[in-house]
Amino acid sequence: MTLKIYIAGPEVFLPNGLEIVERKRALCRDYGFEPSARQGDFLKHAGGDKFTFGVLISGHNEALMRESDIVVANLTPFRGISADPGTVYELGFMCALDRPAFAYTNTARGYHERVVNDYYRGNVTAGVNGRQAGSDGHMIEDHDMVDNLMLDGGIDRLGGFVVRHKAPAGGEFTDLSGYEQCLSRIRDGGWAERLA
Amino acid sequence: MTLKIYIAGPEVFLPNGLEIVERKRALCRDYGFEPSARQGDFLKHAGGDKFTFGVLISGHNEALMRESDIVVANLTPFRGISADPGTVYELGFMCALDRPAFAYTNTARGYHERVVNDYYRGNVTAGVNGRQAGSDGHMIEDHDMVDNLMLDGGIDRLGGFVVRHKAPAGGEFTDLSGYEQCLSRIRDGGWAERLA
Repeated sequence: MTLKIYIAGPEVFLPNGLEIVERKRALCRDYGFEPSARQGDFLKHAGGDKFTFGVLISGHNEALMRESDIVVANLTPFRGISADPGTVYELGFMCALDRPAFAYTNTARGYHERVVNDYYRGNVTAGVNGRQAGSDGHMIEDHDMVDNLMLDGGIDRLGGFVVRHKAPAGGEFTDLSGYEQCLSRIRDGGWAERLA
Repeated sequence: MTLKIYIAGPEVFLPNGLEIVERKRALCRDYGFEPSARQGDFLKHAGGDKFTFGVLISGHNEALMRESDIVVANLTPFRGISADPGTVYELGFMCALDRPAFAYTNTARGYHERVVNDYYRGNVTAGVNGRQAGSDGHMIEDHDMVDNLMLDGGIDRLGGFVVRHKAPAGGEFTDLSGYEQCLSRIRDGGWAERLA
């Protein structure tokens, strides 16, 4: 059985996004997997309004997810301290369908560290009931995870894993070493047989 | 048929989160719905490591989602320009199960405006191929939506809607007017009959 992989990540927003997406699809094949068809970003705006066009792309991507066996998600923080929301939605979508999820992030720094240092700039207090809180009073969770516990928890429940890879500065969105580590571990973990 | 609602949102992180969650659950009942049981935040850390504890909460919440008929998600931007990642994961999860999703956000400002003004502070360019780009070169999408197109698209596909409500300053996480608008519209939209 050749596993079909849905490749989730914010690459579509990069100026050379198409090139990186195609490189990720080619790497899928190199490791013995089949990449899902390209996601809907290539669809042409056919005259409807902007909202309708967005819905069209979303529907295309949801259909690709339903026909994929597993997902490999790029959880590298995007426009803030957390993963790209589109990627997070897709991760939840695949986990609900019990399709094993694997992820990588191009930072070695966990969610707690990013919340405390990047978002709150260290302005945190011991909080109430022993729970740490930010300067806005919001509780800061620490589960030794790469993002909100629903993400890491969903991945873990189905036997998946998250690769933390420290990409060189400037390579946060183009370095594919963590991605390749994912593919290699999925192949060596015998997932094709487990899902056959 | 009494619809069971999974209430998704970042309230658990508020100092008075438990109180707000219980108010949201009570409002569910006021509008003729059944709220799902409280989410796993109340679980006690029973000695395992932090990661295992997070997985326990995640599994509890996933079980609650599977037994709920619809989801009402609070997509108010949390710790940045996008919705809370846990809420986004849960939205994708419910949409994959074809459970209609409804949402509200306590800001009237759409995703495009928040990306351009809040994240990039107006430092954007016309970009390549006519696509607007931020100072980091990343493309900025504009689909007239409240967040990434996968979120709004998934909600729309199943017939749901997003309420945009401008909460008074300081009330972004406690104002429940948008939430009540959601409940009212779900009731009046005959969803209990449609899903019976």
